[in-house]
Amino acid sequence: MTELKNDRFLRALAREPVDMTPVWMMRQAGRYLPEYRETRSKAGDFLSLCKNKELACEVTIQPLERYDLDAAILFSDILTIPDAMGQGLYFEEGEGPRFRKIVRTEKEVEALPIANTEKDLSYVTDAVSTIRKELNGRVPLIGFSGSPWTLATYMVEGGSSKDFRHVKAMMYKQPEVMHQLLEKLALSVIDYLNAQIKAGAQAVQIFDTWGGNLSDVAYKTFSLAYMQKIVKGLIREYDGRKVPVILFTKGGGLWLPEMADVGADALGLDWTMDIGRARALVGDKVALQGNMDPSVLYSSPKQIRAEVERILKSYGPGEGHVFNLGHGIHQFVDPESAGVFVEAVHEFSAQYHL
Amino acid sequence: MTELKNDRFLRALAREPVDMTPVWMMRQAGRYLPEYRETRSKAGDFLSLCKNKELACEVTIQPLERYDLDAAILFSDILTIPDAMGQGLYFEEGEGPRFRKIVRTEKEVEALPIANTEKDLSYVTDAVSTIRKELNGRVPLIGFSGSPWTLATYMVEGGSSKDFRHVKAMMYKQPEVMHQLLEKLALSVIDYLNAQIKAGAQAVQIFDTWGGNLSDVAYKTFSLAYMQKIVKGLIREYDGRKVPVILFTKGGGLWLPEMADVGADALGLDWTMDIGRARALVGDKVALQGNMDPSVLYSSPKQIRAEVERILKSYGPGEGHVFNLGHGIHQFVDPESAGVFVEAVHEFSAQYHL
Repeated sequence: MTELKNDRFLRALAREPVDMTPVWMMRQAGRYLPEYRETRSKAGDFLSLCKNKELACEVTIQPLERYDLDAAILFSDILTIPDAMGQGLYFEEGEGPRFRKIVRTEKEVEALPIANTEKDLSYVTDAVSTIRKELNGRVPLIGFSGSPWTLATYMVEGGSSKDFRHVKAMMYKQPEVMHQLLEKLALSVIDYLNAQIKAGAQAVQIFDTWGGNLSDVAYKTFSLAYMQKIVKGLIREYDGRKVPVILFTKGGGLWLPEMADVGADALGLDWTMDIGRARALVGDKVALQGNMDPSVLYSSPKQIRAEVERILKSYGPGEGHVFNLGHGIHQFVDPESAGVFVEAVHEFSAQYHL
Repeated sequence: MTELKNDRFLRALAREPVDMTPVWMMRQAGRYLPEYRETRSKAGDFLSLCKNKELACEVTIQPLERYDLDAAILFSDILTIPDAMGQGLYFEEGEGPRFRKIVRTEKEVEALPIANTEKDLSYVTDAVSTIRKELNGRVPLIGFSGSPWTLATYMVEGGSSKDFRHVKAMMYKQPEVMHQLLEKLALSVIDYLNAQIKAGAQAVQIFDTWGGNLSDVAYKTFSLAYMQKIVKGLIREYDGRKVPVILFTKGGGLWLPEMADVGADALGLDWTMDIGRARALVGDKVALQGNMDPSVLYSSPKQIRAEVERILKSYGPGEGHVFNLGHGIHQFVDPESAGVFVEAVHEFSAQYHL
């Protein structure tokens, strides 16, 4: 494979010296970009875009053409795995994801297969190789998956949820059934992420969007334990290079010390936790990724720059920081504001890496 | 006023000895109870029920007839204050609260009055006196209000929100306008809660439902600071008895030490924070209220009892614990399960108060 021209992101994840703090944005290939909206309308619906490797590659690269980003992230959806398990994923405009089949009973969980990446998710690994080739060493490519708990919430609820009524009922009422489901999902995720790594992903991130809605005990038992299993099952060195793993639990600030112990290279932070405090909590066990509130991008360039400075200052001098938003960039953000953000990270961070 | 027959709740808030841990449930007068649904259908819509003191009293008392609860909470809505400020609150079935007027500009914030409790919220204070009389000393009555930040989110968004786009845009872009709005809300809340106290509320709770969606700095600046202002402005002794104040920020686990310093008597916890850990963090500064995941009530009596035991054990021996759910009871919970919960708290907690 081609030599990597910008390895700031990978160096920061390894807590090695960098000239400035690397930056990327969750959902950087997204609806806030007019060029994304154009490609998406060519593709038809969202899933068709994910399943077309040329178009998925096109939208993955788009934000890199606009901004000086230090990483690309595979354009895909977190729900490809349940889809490959036969759940029938579809999207209704403005309604979020839906599944044709819902998993609620012991029988339904037992009947679920482990996702077969080679057979049913080759469109993802094909997209990874296509993007990796197209990137040509420009920046590293991040692969990703949803966490078992997060995938389970969608599979049991049948889509998005406000109160997680059914999935929590299963967890509290039939914990052994929930464990069986999570086990199947963890094995699926391991296979899926390893296939992404073999196809060219140079780092992987596990998105635990809904782990933060669990109680302390339930988070450790039903979310973190399965992410730990995944971390242990992943290929950690490939193509002569270490493959770092980032864990991101939205709303997981209370569990950073426990998260730092599962063997991941970095933890993603949403914006609720002060990053300096997070750094003190995790010590030198892991790098940290985050954590500006995406809504700051609704403010003026001056205010965006001030918030970037504040976060850099809170993290302080030294290595191990990948700058990011605390969640995906909102669709209504002005693309210019994202540019101000990315530039500010590079401009203000050099002083912390002398 | 009549002598209080059960003061466990007030004693626990004061961290004084009790025979068993007191318990109540957020939203205990609610849709999970068939008798509530019946009264509500008599009243017509939800707001008419809030505005009718006899019916509001009836639904407030209903859960006490079923369960051995240690406190009653005024039946009302957190959005009565913005309604009294002229925003035109209404509810659409299954859609949550909506406002006819939305506040987004500096001019609109400037034009807002402070809510006049005496003139526009007498239906609330009338309900308080009616309930207090009807309770006849059975258990203490809790009054409440939304926090300024939480009220502001609904006023600026025009209703519920997923991403808080407009209110956060205002906060980041025009912080001085946001401060002006929060200041008006804080003054309104002080007046409103003091009127509830004078009408008979024996404790008050401030519901900060959306503070947990803020960044660390923003939470302290735009939510906690105004709750502190309210705490300082409240009548803390009335009718020969201290009036305790409970602060509840959903998702506020990261800020417990700061919350413990604003002068409240107790902090409400959602279910994400282990209560033993919370207790260690706040020391003897405040009592704690919480914190079972309301979804546990979807499980079996045995499992509900086990979770109650676990939480009591985590809090440990000694005073200062009011048992509650970590959020409002869900509408689909079987009323029997709520009964199992309340009984289990009393049954298992006696051993911690010897």
